[in-house]
Amino acid sequence: MLINDRYIKAALSQPVDKTPVWMMRQAGRYLPEYREIRAKAGNFMALCTNPELACEVTLQPLRRYELDAAILFSDILTIPDAMGLELYFKAGEGPAFKKPVKTEADIKKLFVPDVFDKLKYVTDAVSLIRKELKGQVPLIGFSGSPWTLATYMVEGGTTKNFGIVKGMLFDQPQLMHQILSVLAQSVTEYLNAQIESGAQAVMIFDTWGGVLSTDNYQEFSLAYMQRIIDGLKRNHEGHQIPVTIFTKGGAGWLEKMAETGADCVGLDWTIDIDQAKARIGNKVALQGNMDPCVLYSNPQRIEREVASILDKFGRGNGHIFNLGHGIHPTIDPENVKAYVNAVHRFSEQYHN
Amino acid sequence: MLINDRYIKAALSQPVDKTPVWMMRQAGRYLPEYREIRAKAGNFMALCTNPELACEVTLQPLRRYELDAAILFSDILTIPDAMGLELYFKAGEGPAFKKPVKTEADIKKLFVPDVFDKLKYVTDAVSLIRKELKGQVPLIGFSGSPWTLATYMVEGGTTKNFGIVKGMLFDQPQLMHQILSVLAQSVTEYLNAQIESGAQAVMIFDTWGGVLSTDNYQEFSLAYMQRIIDGLKRNHEGHQIPVTIFTKGGAGWLEKMAETGADCVGLDWTIDIDQAKARIGNKVALQGNMDPCVLYSNPQRIEREVASILDKFGRGNGHIFNLGHGIHPTIDPENVKAYVNAVHRFSEQYHN
Repeated sequence: MLINDRYIKAALSQPVDKTPVWMMRQAGRYLPEYREIRAKAGNFMALCTNPELACEVTLQPLRRYELDAAILFSDILTIPDAMGLELYFKAGEGPAFKKPVKTEADIKKLFVPDVFDKLKYVTDAVSLIRKELKGQVPLIGFSGSPWTLATYMVEGGTTKNFGIVKGMLFDQPQLMHQILSVLAQSVTEYLNAQIESGAQAVMIFDTWGGVLSTDNYQEFSLAYMQRIIDGLKRNHEGHQIPVTIFTKGGAGWLEKMAETGADCVGLDWTIDIDQAKARIGNKVALQGNMDPCVLYSNPQRIEREVASILDKFGRGNGHIFNLGHGIHPTIDPENVKAYVNAVHRFSEQYHN
Repeated sequence: MLINDRYIKAALSQPVDKTPVWMMRQAGRYLPEYREIRAKAGNFMALCTNPELACEVTLQPLRRYELDAAILFSDILTIPDAMGLELYFKAGEGPAFKKPVKTEADIKKLFVPDVFDKLKYVTDAVSLIRKELKGQVPLIGFSGSPWTLATYMVEGGTTKNFGIVKGMLFDQPQLMHQILSVLAQSVTEYLNAQIESGAQAVMIFDTWGGVLSTDNYQEFSLAYMQRIIDGLKRNHEGHQIPVTIFTKGGAGWLEKMAETGADCVGLDWTIDIDQAKARIGNKVALQGNMDPCVLYSNPQRIEREVASILDKFGRGNGHIFNLGHGIHPTIDPENVKAYVNAVHRFSEQYHN
């Protein structure tokens, strides 16, 4: 059914001919054709909520590069928006909510949104992208982790020191658990809806788990990702649906992440992939882990970095090449070509 | 000579009666008396460059709390300012430079500033504070690490994704090494001048080392901290001068930090102190590691956290209690009292 199933096989730690490669935020501002569509849509959320445009930008990077997966174009904050928090984007300042969650009364009002109603624009986009992909590569669905979503909901937007949300965590942990419970249930239903609509793999982005202590990471972030993983449809229409979890700054907790039952664990660039493989490579596949800033350099330097990461991983199954975080908006698209091609060219020697 | 030398002894892994405690940024905006002086000075740099006022705010927290050390009130960006980059503070946006380092020509112009000329306001403040402390507790001098200073110098101020400075690192590493070499020499002279002026311990803050990969951390941050440590006066007037290095986000590299010859390694809150002790406790003292956001909660919760960290460290020498990062400006000063007192009250059982 899939013409290129390297990504799925690698995520399930099965043999492949070459290491699959994709990029977080691969449909994004570094591409002039993306900026054109984004300008046409008027604003970011108009792009996210229009399935045809979301489909178009999802497919754009695949036309330029030999990527081994597509990822749904969307925002991580669709769920809190569907809960009525009213997401908007301040120019140059990132996402914010008109109705942040500040009080116990605000928390009591939270609910699990009906995915096929309030988030129908997402499942419609998934169905359309899946159809338009024509089996070329798999489509990855995704969500933010409950903790990551909660940081934006409680802070009201982006934050530098997480004082408000961690203040609540330490001072009123029971309130934080209430928020996270609703979010875990919501994310589970959201990802299952994406799977039912055609997503062939899913990924949970825990962008801000790394700002917690070890104990708090387990109690307030990992435990809720565990609930989601336990509730996901891991098979759909006879196909296994690989699940990846990624905590930025989570290098200290890889063993715990691998114990969740996820098929694949994402790595940022602050840990060497050979060490990560030695620690958890027998349990899960690994995704990562090039510093996105390497793409600011030049093709030779990029190739050297790709070769180094492939060499550190060495032979064996279960490596999906990726950046350790999303690609930055000011990267030269030509450098991305060098990156993608280098992964395929240099990785053959480590397979079969 | 020192009435309370717990901090010095603990930093040198010698026995103490109680675990010493202080806080990064303890002279800061959470104190109303600080805000008063700051308002009087007009702006932040006016405060830093006035030895009398810098002395006054350094001493303020010691009047409220039984802290075991004073730390020089200053900014980490005094060195690049002395190099002519013209530091200023944008309201609500943090520090910035009028003349950032963008080109090879800019780098060629960098020089090691004459500490006793351009930075005399710092050494004057050190002498004055030391005198005013009257041997009550030791005075800690400090500097930013070369890599951390370079991030601000090249980006022109604070940054979210370090694209410009890491772009230079990957694309033109030889230029980055030139910047770091000048900075390492400057920091060495700066810290030695602080020691000669009366600082009884020094600390190097590597706030941004944690945004690097393992290899790059060693090459672009740790190697230059090593140069500094190798060049520091470790004895002054018959007293040993303990050196602490702290890389925020550096939990993965503790062994390497301990090998530098530093007496003490600072920990943020993302690693359990028992694990850090097991890894490097035989080589160095440890400083840390409470999440600063715990101080947003309440005295009971704060006491529980202090007790937990003390319990994890357990018996043995070489623990200086601290936050894992600077105290936030909106913390209630009463909660700080609970923190300081709890460390002294609960730690006695682990000593003698």
